[in-house]
Parts: sequence; structure tokens; C-alpha cells
Amino acid sequence: MSQSCIFCRIIKGEIPAARVYEDEHVLAFMDIGPVVKGHTLVIPKSHHNPLMETPPEVLHQLISVVQKIARAQMKGLQADGINVSQANGEAAGQVVPHIHFHVIPRFTADGFHGNWIPKKYDSPEEMNDFAGRIRSALT
Amino acid sequence: MSQSCIFCRIIKGEIPAARVYEDEHVLAFMDIGPVVKGHTLVIPKSHHNPLMETPPEVLHQLISVVQKIARAQMKGLQADGINVSQANGEAAGQVVPHIHFHVIPRFTADGFHGNWIPKKYDSPEEMNDFAGRIRSALT
Repeated sequence: MSQSCIFCRIIKGEIPAARVYEDEHVLAFMDIGPVVKGHTLVIPKSHHNPLMETPPEVLHQLISVVQKIARAQMKGLQADGINVSQANGEAAGQVVPHIHFHVIPRFTADGFHGNWIPKKYDSPEEMNDFAGRIRSALT
Repeated sequence: MSQSCIFCRIIKGEIPAARVYEDEHVLAFMDIGPVVKGHTLVIPKSHHNPLMETPPEVLHQLISVVQKIARAQMKGLQADGINVSQANGEAAGQVVPHIHFHVIPRFTADGFHGNWIPKKYDSPEEMNDFAGRIRSALT
């Protein structure tokens, strides 16, 4: 845990987030600046950064939850595809220095071409609706 | 193994590739159309696709090798950061339907902003030089 880390503070509940999945080791929640609506972040509950210094068992826990979220986005959002993305270092565009995987639902002609342009939900209700649809499709 | 799959044919040695790492389960080799020079692909030797249908143990093997390659790119190429990227489905920009992780070395001001524009190496020797520098830095 790092007091200055925004993701550690989300884990502790000090900062609100629309949670879609949680277990002992991993948390998944909605990115508030989605590149495509439904965009979900998967993070370890222990503070690690970057991927190069993350213990293997934590990486295994993370990628298993990435798969779980990807499946739920396909089913719950009727997505056509999924992008998984993970950045390490400012040069790679990483903003929060706590390892995280982006799981991004893709739709034919959704206009996303890899340029990282965060969008906004029309309302908190819309974000919660996306979160609920993913959560309901978890298996 | 799928006879029509280009990655399965690379694994079998029917199509050449600049290999940087190999074990019983996983192969890593240079992407011939790098978005940044040094761009490496990590694939399972067994044919699986997409991530949503890949067995957990294969995902664990893959992400462990992704970490290994990321560390070697940092050290061997003196990279400033690393992007990891993985696409599922045409809507997500996937071209070869055999699960693969892209491991992309990043350099401050390398001009890559996520737009997937494959570049070319100046020569096969240049690609082999990058492969050799990554290979030599593997631990």
C-alpha cells in the first residue's frame, strides 16, 4: 500500500470507483476516462510497479482476471472484440504508477484507433450501467 | 497446430523468424512490422485463440515470458518504457488468429502514439541486431 497512490486509495475505499470484480488479490473497476465505453482496469491489491518488477504469481492472478473481464465484456456488452493494454513508464504513457491492465471492449467502427483519447460517460448512471452489465455477465 | 496459421508455421520452422526466446511452451520473435524497432511477439506453441478461450496455464506461461522480454528490452535496448498489447477479434485490430502479446520498447519521443503503423527495419541485419541485443539481455 502506498498512501500517495490513487489506486491503493481506491482499493482501500478512500476514493470511490465503479467496481466490477473483486477477490482476495485483484480488483477490477471502470476507467473514468474510457477510450471506449466499458473500458475496465484490472489491478493487484498489493502495490507493484512496473510489470518488470511484479512477482510472477501476481501477474498470473492479474491475467486470469483480465480474461474473466474480457469474457464478461463480450457477453455483457455484446462486444465484437477486446483489446488488452498495459503501459510501463512515462515514455509508454503510464500515468498511475501501480501496475494495471486495461481491458477495452471493441465494437466494429467504434472509432478507436489506438490513440489514447479518454472519453467521458454521459452520466455516472451510464458508467454504472456499463459496470452492471459486465458484472452480471461474470462467470 | 493449424496448417493455415502463419504463427504455427513459424513455430514449426516453415516460415523464418528472428527468434529471441524459446522454451517448451512459448516462443518470442521479432515482429517484422514493428511499431517501434525492437517490437517482439510472444506466442504459445500450442494453437489457441482468442485470449477468452486460452487455458489459464497457457496465459500464465505467456505473461511470464512477456515479463522476461520486457526486462530484456529495457536492459538490452536501453528502453525508457514498455507497452504490452494484445488484440482479440478483427474489431480489435487482430490480424493473425493465434493469441499473441506485443511487447513494445518505448523511447522518450519515439513518435508512437498508439496508432498501429507498422514500420520497417532498414535491413534484415538491423532486425537481427535488435533481436541479438534483446537475446543477450535475457536473464
